[in-house]
Amino acid sequence: MIKAAVFGYGNIGKAAIEAINAAPDFELAGVVSSSLEKGALGKIPVVRDVDELSDVQIVILCIPSRNVPDIAEKILLKGISTVDCFDIHSETYNLFTRLDAAAKKGNSRCATSIGFDPGIDSAIRALFEAAAPKGLTYTNFGPGMSMGHSVAVRKIPGVKDAMSVTIPVGAGVHRRMVYVVLEDGADFNKVTAQIKSDPYFVNDETHVIQVSNLDMLIDRGHSVSIQRKGVSGSAQNQRFTFEMSIDNPAMTAQMMVSAARAVLRQAPGAYTMLHLPPIDLLYGTEEELIRRLV
Amino acid sequence: MIKAAVFGYGNIGKAAIEAINAAPDFELAGVVSSSLEKGALGKIPVVRDVDELSDVQIVILCIPSRNVPDIAEKILLKGISTVDCFDIHSETYNLFTRLDAAAKKGNSRCATSIGFDPGIDSAIRALFEAAAPKGLTYTNFGPGMSMGHSVAVRKIPGVKDAMSVTIPVGAGVHRRMVYVVLEDGADFNKVTAQIKSDPYFVNDETHVIQVSNLDMLIDRGHSVSIQRKGVSGSAQNQRFTFEMSIDNPAMTAQMMVSAARAVLRQAPGAYTMLHLPPIDLLYGTEEELIRRLV
Repeated sequence: MIKAAVFGYGNIGKAAIEAINAAPDFELAGVVSSSLEKGALGKIPVVRDVDELSDVQIVILCIPSRNVPDIAEKILLKGISTVDCFDIHSETYNLFTRLDAAAKKGNSRCATSIGFDPGIDSAIRALFEAAAPKGLTYTNFGPGMSMGHSVAVRKIPGVKDAMSVTIPVGAGVHRRMVYVVLEDGADFNKVTAQIKSDPYFVNDETHVIQVSNLDMLIDRGHSVSIQRKGVSGSAQNQRFTFEMSIDNPAMTAQMMVSAARAVLRQAPGAYTMLHLPPIDLLYGTEEELIRRLV
Repeated sequence: MIKAAVFGYGNIGKAAIEAINAAPDFELAGVVSSSLEKGALGKIPVVRDVDELSDVQIVILCIPSRNVPDIAEKILLKGISTVDCFDIHSETYNLFTRLDAAAKKGNSRCATSIGFDPGIDSAIRALFEAAAPKGLTYTNFGPGMSMGHSVAVRKIPGVKDAMSVTIPVGAGVHRRMVYVVLEDGADFNKVTAQIKSDPYFVNDETHVIQVSNLDMLIDRGHSVSIQRKGVSGSAQNQRFTFEMSIDNPAMTAQMMVSAARAVLRQAPGAYTMLHLPPIDLLYGTEEELIRRLV
């Protein structure tokens, strides 16, 4: 049994607990949370720090992307493996090299940038290029709530609550619809300007809409359509499409648990979804998986 | 540069030459063919046996599935790596273990059951299960010509030429439409009975249609739709779809060339598409690939 801890108790953390409970080869060692009360999860230990749990092999980091680099590095250096769902695309390579160094130093394993996108989408894009090396791939998100974008808006001063919905415009272009509940006295125009200049939003057409309550708008469903049209050898017009329509935190957490299984089978170091052999993501014997899936 | 030979000069062999020529890191060492004339490909050496070529690292086997086990094993034992597109699903595991043993003995590498299905479809099915471990996956082929099925029919006595078209019926069920040109004096009913009892056809509704000429019917295009509806953690109704519409021999050959690149980066042994890390399939530096695809 793989002894795993869940770090963070938001949407993804809660879903990670469900995914661990559903996996036949995992055991939940505990939940690391700074806000959750000690007895809140019954028999499941709630702790403030990973060190308070014993025999943890891997920590599923269900925390905002911006907190991942420091927290993951610290855990990896202790000799405990990690999985994260870091999702700032422009920074994934730097994080990969940093965590690769930490994991090799700590003799631990790290699955980084795992989940939806980066995550399953990354592996799909790689397979599409392997089948047709020349051509264009478009990743079209939505309609659906983007967790990374929503968390980024909630960190902006004056924002009480927020939800960012991604609308696909086509050919990989998106519009962002940001629904915000403001703190009393916050300046809507100032908040809007800050959102639009945030790295998560600066490249997309972004609309900010003030609402008094978010509860009636929230649906954690999300979708993607990845399309490639390319060339295999000299054959033109080869077409590939991947579509997914999911409860986003549930899929992200599930993929992190699958990647936890896979990364523990690798040599010390860091791995993205591009590096993990698909068979290692799955529970079962090699024979059973080859007979069923190949 | 990877020095690769192409073994076989049918539809897939011709496409493999195109894929090798289009790859920046491959060099075509020659073509192994028992029927092609020595000078038929200009400057490209045409030989009868792999031994006649020097410095070949990997042989792309573009031969009927039933010839793969013996030929691949022989080459692997010589210390030369192979890629095959063996496509008899019920026998892939036994072939994998046999070629794994040969490759380890010969200190070579083997990518087996690579191409369309088994192939890219195998990796997709594994990723879908990683994202939603419980549920059902349906692989729906066509409409399109199945190469493996067509080759199997052409081997039946009395058949001059044949094409097997796969029609998706839904939920992974298929109908086979087999168009045959018979040898003079062949018995249509006898041929039909043999086709219907062949392992390639015995499980599917199969219709055999006699035609006088196949030329006007042949289109190498093929399609697939893989659909999974499953559960991530405790979230139901997670939906995943992969669709592909391709020139089939061109995609198969391209995937074999990509797998050749990948397998040469692994330890000696056999690898299916489930075993190969997606990043290894692609040309480029790790940094460039992570920045572009993760």
